[in-house]
Amino acid sequence: MGGDRGPAEIVAGAVDAASERIAPVIFGPAGLDTRGLEHVVAPDVIEMDDKPADAVRAKPNSSMVAACRSVGEGRCDVVVSAGSTGAMLAAGFRVIGRLPGVMRPAIGVVLPALRGPAVLIDAGANADARPEHLLQFALMGSIFSEEVLGIVRAEVRLLSIGEEAEKGNQLTIEAHALLAGSDLPFRGNVESRDLLRDPGDVIVCDGFTGNIALKAIEGTIRTMFGSLTEEITRTSAGKLGGLLIRPGARRLRGRLDPDNHGGAYLLGLKGLVVIAHGNSSRRAIQNAILLGARGVEKDVVGRLGARLPERTPTGAVREP
Amino acid sequence: MGGDRGPAEIVAGAVDAASERIAPVIFGPAGLDTRGLEHVVAPDVIEMDDKPADAVRAKPNSSMVAACRSVGEGRCDVVVSAGSTGAMLAAGFRVIGRLPGVMRPAIGVVLPALRGPAVLIDAGANADARPEHLLQFALMGSIFSEEVLGIVRAEVRLLSIGEEAEKGNQLTIEAHALLAGSDLPFRGNVESRDLLRDPGDVIVCDGFTGNIALKAIEGTIRTMFGSLTEEITRTSAGKLGGLLIRPGARRLRGRLDPDNHGGAYLLGLKGLVVIAHGNSSRRAIQNAILLGARGVEKDVVGRLGARLPERTPTGAVREP
Repeated sequence: MGGDRGPAEIVAGAVDAASERIAPVIFGPAGLDTRGLEHVVAPDVIEMDDKPADAVRAKPNSSMVAACRSVGEGRCDVVVSAGSTGAMLAAGFRVIGRLPGVMRPAIGVVLPALRGPAVLIDAGANADARPEHLLQFALMGSIFSEEVLGIVRAEVRLLSIGEEAEKGNQLTIEAHALLAGSDLPFRGNVESRDLLRDPGDVIVCDGFTGNIALKAIEGTIRTMFGSLTEEITRTSAGKLGGLLIRPGARRLRGRLDPDNHGGAYLLGLKGLVVIAHGNSSRRAIQNAILLGARGVEKDVVGRLGARLPERTPTGAVREP
Repeated sequence: MGGDRGPAEIVAGAVDAASERIAPVIFGPAGLDTRGLEHVVAPDVIEMDDKPADAVRAKPNSSMVAACRSVGEGRCDVVVSAGSTGAMLAAGFRVIGRLPGVMRPAIGVVLPALRGPAVLIDAGANADARPEHLLQFALMGSIFSEEVLGIVRAEVRLLSIGEEAEKGNQLTIEAHALLAGSDLPFRGNVESRDLLRDPGDVIVCDGFTGNIALKAIEGTIRTMFGSLTEEITRTSAGKLGGLLIRPGARRLRGRLDPDNHGGAYLLGLKGLVVIAHGNSSRRAIQNAILLGARGVEKDVVGRLGARLPERTPTGAVREP
């Protein structure tokens, strides 16, 4: 039921993603045409304005909660949803549960930076966070970067509003000190203007800041492609030029288009969760499912679980 | 002395800005060639890593403090600086002083959104802010938008990570309630992806968030123009297309280029302050000075001073 475009779009993306190695299971309302895919009937619906924690408790047969349960109980390997991020987070927390030692699960998004892929964590799970949470996000991001992206000793940077240690808000100033005192390869602050250029391998921030930065980048890319088309097609010469640059522009768009990534991992749970954009297209859903499948193949959860305890950093306070 | 490119670049921009209506005065070290412009010798230098408040106290003859003094004492009309924002804020606060009723001065930046100019406030003066500060930023932004940009009943929106009132962090959730209870035309939250499209007339946020969003937009624009050029010039057809679209691309670039705006107003002080980018070019400095001159002509400070007390909103707590 998740996603702004309705269940048919989700089913279409799942059909596109299905292969010998991937068997999508659709969790949704009775009567839904799942086009031959396995169908688990989940009649409850979590609305965008439901309070996440309440909704997860009150609606155990919503598609999100039922799908998380199937992963928690080992019947499925990964859950992919384009529904409310808050509800998905609550469902993951309550139904799948956290890995030992994890204070707060966080969303890790792979940014298509010029120097190579970089992990932004947290991209929206924790709107308010404490310095020790940021330290643990850095650790989870590093393990993810090393194990899944294959980056050796991933460079960690802290997203702030100036490169100097004392530039930032109370949260980043305290997090800077914790990161500098940890055994992570911490390279100081990074400003949001460098996120698409050279942001390091792992960029750490609270979920509010990460979401603001990510959506500012996405919105700017979309607005710029639209405005550029408008500006250059004002003249005949520009229209011809527009045709000639189309292949190059498409390559760039393809590299930057969030639909090509499809989603982001929610890291720190005992099962794998992929969060897709609310307005995901069929192609975005397909790619989110492929991302989920790669996460299963790379055993993201197992590797985080194995390496988190060994590297729980100095200063991290485990919550009961 | 402010600015990453050295005093000569600042002088060049000031020479370009000079006219019958604008008489730039250069505050800088002895021996500086001010190319005929009035020169006030200010030998102290505030470094980027100086602690702002300490530096302002310890270096009364720095260019920033001396220039603020000249505005505070009415010898100049507006001060423009590309130096450390923190030091400029501290100098403005201490040497020029706040307008009656103002808790925290804030940086207002005009965004070139598709639907028309919009004011983002605070763009970086207050890395940590409280809900009542955001309410006052909204008020200052509204007065600025109405009086200077000529927008009638400027629509106020709150920058957050979801459109619903309960989406955001503790600060935005509380600020949302204050804004909704005020007499401002508040239209709810706006997400950063809409900042260049349709963000309302006044976008309110703390200075950390505003700075993150602004620099993410600027960085994305710069990276995209660079990457697009690279992608399309890979083929001969693309190179030809690149030539043909150049006029349109230049128009877009001109509209979006921060150098064309030059700077931002620091609002809430008893004198006018324009903060320019640290790496301002000669053209950016020229435009920052023109922006300052427009602010003097429009009497930004006088209008804020006259209208702030009349509209000090419900819930705002004045600091002693």
